[in-house]
Amino acid sequence: MLINDLDTPALLIDLDLMEANIAALFAQLRPSGVRVRPHLKTAKCPEVARILAAAGARGFCVAKLGEAEVMAAAGIDDLLITSEIAGAPKLRRLAALHAAHPQVRVVVDSVVGARLLDAAVSGGPTPLEVLIELDVGQGRCGTAPGEPARALARAIAGLPHLRLVGLQGYEGHLQHIADHRERDARVDAAMAQLTATADLLRADGHAIDQVTTGGTGTCARCAAHPGVTEVQPGSFVFLDRAYRDALGPQGGYANALTVRSTVISRPVAGRAVLDAGLKALPTDMGNAEPVGLPGVSYRPGGDEHGILSWADDADPGLAIGDRVALIPGHIDTTVNLFDAYHAQRGGAVVEIWPIAARGRSQ
Amino acid sequence: MLINDLDTPALLIDLDLMEANIAALFAQLRPSGVRVRPHLKTAKCPEVARILAAAGARGFCVAKLGEAEVMAAAGIDDLLITSEIAGAPKLRRLAALHAAHPQVRVVVDSVVGARLLDAAVSGGPTPLEVLIELDVGQGRCGTAPGEPARALARAIAGLPHLRLVGLQGYEGHLQHIADHRERDARVDAAMAQLTATADLLRADGHAIDQVTTGGTGTCARCAAHPGVTEVQPGSFVFLDRAYRDALGPQGGYANALTVRSTVISRPVAGRAVLDAGLKALPTDMGNAEPVGLPGVSYRPGGDEHGILSWADDADPGLAIGDRVALIPGHIDTTVNLFDAYHAQRGGAVVEIWPIAARGRSQ
Repeated sequence: MLINDLDTPALLIDLDLMEANIAALFAQLRPSGVRVRPHLKTAKCPEVARILAAAGARGFCVAKLGEAEVMAAAGIDDLLITSEIAGAPKLRRLAALHAAHPQVRVVVDSVVGARLLDAAVSGGPTPLEVLIELDVGQGRCGTAPGEPARALARAIAGLPHLRLVGLQGYEGHLQHIADHRERDARVDAAMAQLTATADLLRADGHAIDQVTTGGTGTCARCAAHPGVTEVQPGSFVFLDRAYRDALGPQGGYANALTVRSTVISRPVAGRAVLDAGLKALPTDMGNAEPVGLPGVSYRPGGDEHGILSWADDADPGLAIGDRVALIPGHIDTTVNLFDAYHAQRGGAVVEIWPIAARGRSQ
Repeated sequence: MLINDLDTPALLIDLDLMEANIAALFAQLRPSGVRVRPHLKTAKCPEVARILAAAGARGFCVAKLGEAEVMAAAGIDDLLITSEIAGAPKLRRLAALHAAHPQVRVVVDSVVGARLLDAAVSGGPTPLEVLIELDVGQGRCGTAPGEPARALARAIAGLPHLRLVGLQGYEGHLQHIADHRERDARVDAAMAQLTATADLLRADGHAIDQVTTGGTGTCARCAAHPGVTEVQPGSFVFLDRAYRDALGPQGGYANALTVRSTVISRPVAGRAVLDAGLKALPTDMGNAEPVGLPGVSYRPGGDEHGILSWADDADPGLAIGDRVALIPGHIDTTVNLFDAYHAQRGGAVVEIWPIAARGRSQ
């Protein structure tokens, strides 16, 4: 099947570009010796995970239990769930996952949360391995570095069904800083907090084997810090408009994923309407960008409409039925709207991969 | 099952409020005699459609072919597809749907589009019934009122496999105007264009039986115009924060749909983190709002995190594991992220309804 035969809106992976992105990341990180545990909340797809594993990934991150269940069912169970888990129904599901896949790890950022986890897995085959989440400046979850983290580590050490194995400190607020000197400086400060807390906990007798951090925008800098053992990038596989704008050509990654759409209306000069709107291209990190149409901009025109507009001297000559590819503003929320990837090479669709973890809102 | 037993994030319908919303709309519109053809792009759910039909709905709107296919398969096939259809793969699907469900209607806004439709359904059992879409000021799709619409009607009349049955003019740009006098005045101007064009086409010999328009924010005003035969509201069933803010208490509708979430972290005073982020509560019409927590505001904290914050004097006393309900900013893009509704009455989940049309990105 050729990509022109696909119905739209459709999510397309350019395999050549994706493979180049993956090769670039591993080439960049290999000299550091750091472990690469890619985040699958972006791709939500076992096939993509297998390609990453073949390239050198050692285990994977997921953002929530539903993603972990889907990946474990697909045979991918060296997993770190990077968000705290709470609530009785989810703790019951976690206990079931832990019983079948004891290598799945979770993060925890409070004594209350640790006690809930401990109680939930008390019937399990082995202790649940946990990492303390540290707030290294993001202002989301995480215990504070230093003494509060030490107090939490001691509390965890006293719980019979948990085993503390590491620290997670994710600097999500630094991923999209375009000024690389500022980004590097702030990453250095965050890594100093993270690694100092790891040392503090080791000095207190805890085995902190994993110190995990870093996203697509920061992982190379994180990996240069000796105390960091692992990085968690995910967006580099496909990239998006927001990351491309932040990292620039020096980032080393290309936009490998696009949403393919069809022109459904040409009502007036200067405007074309596409069949891809808010339900195909979320706006939470800005609008999508049309590919290969200089001077043409995209904005959503409702749930199922997208509006292309241009000045007179940039008329792209679009007709009803023509196809337009768009680079998503934010890849994570975009992938989450589609059922499958169409993986193409040279204009031919060579694979269709279900976005297996999409259906799990929980 | 009680709602406290549900895992989160989960989409909850308060049935009492939903039924009151539906009763309020039909009570408001009944005196006008206008036909109510609710839009199902919001609910995407045959069970909701059946409740609307029992309340007086006569047929339904859908935004795209995939929704029409799902509804027709569920036995709901008095449908108007309110967006233009183009592209060879979709035209083939339309022909198949038309052959099995000849009462499904579509809109068209160009001679090019009309010819493509005509060719696509040339093997069908009956002509495809079409409505001309008119741009009454929204600036999206639609032919211009007056002479351009007459020229298009004449072109359609010359095509053997299409039958022109009406006009659609949707004033989407007026739905959320909070000043009701301004909204009414601009609706009146749009309806004057729509009904004058309907008269122009009738004078030219076309049978314009359907003049369809109106959303939740405008349909009552639209229905007061004698030339309007049909309105298309959809959001009134559930409401959202954007519509509530625009319409106020005078709107007559309550927020019947919420996303239920769980507190996963209480890292510092003044902040709680929920398990509902960008992949549960899209931001395209602003942020969600927590229910029953005065002085507490919500913002997304990434794909799977939501951050509640408050000043010292508004501490809601939330603990890890507590549940928080949120009113979505925009219901259409929110529903599109979930697999099922949990319909509750008095705190008990009494029905689970699959969001059957969700999976169809096309």
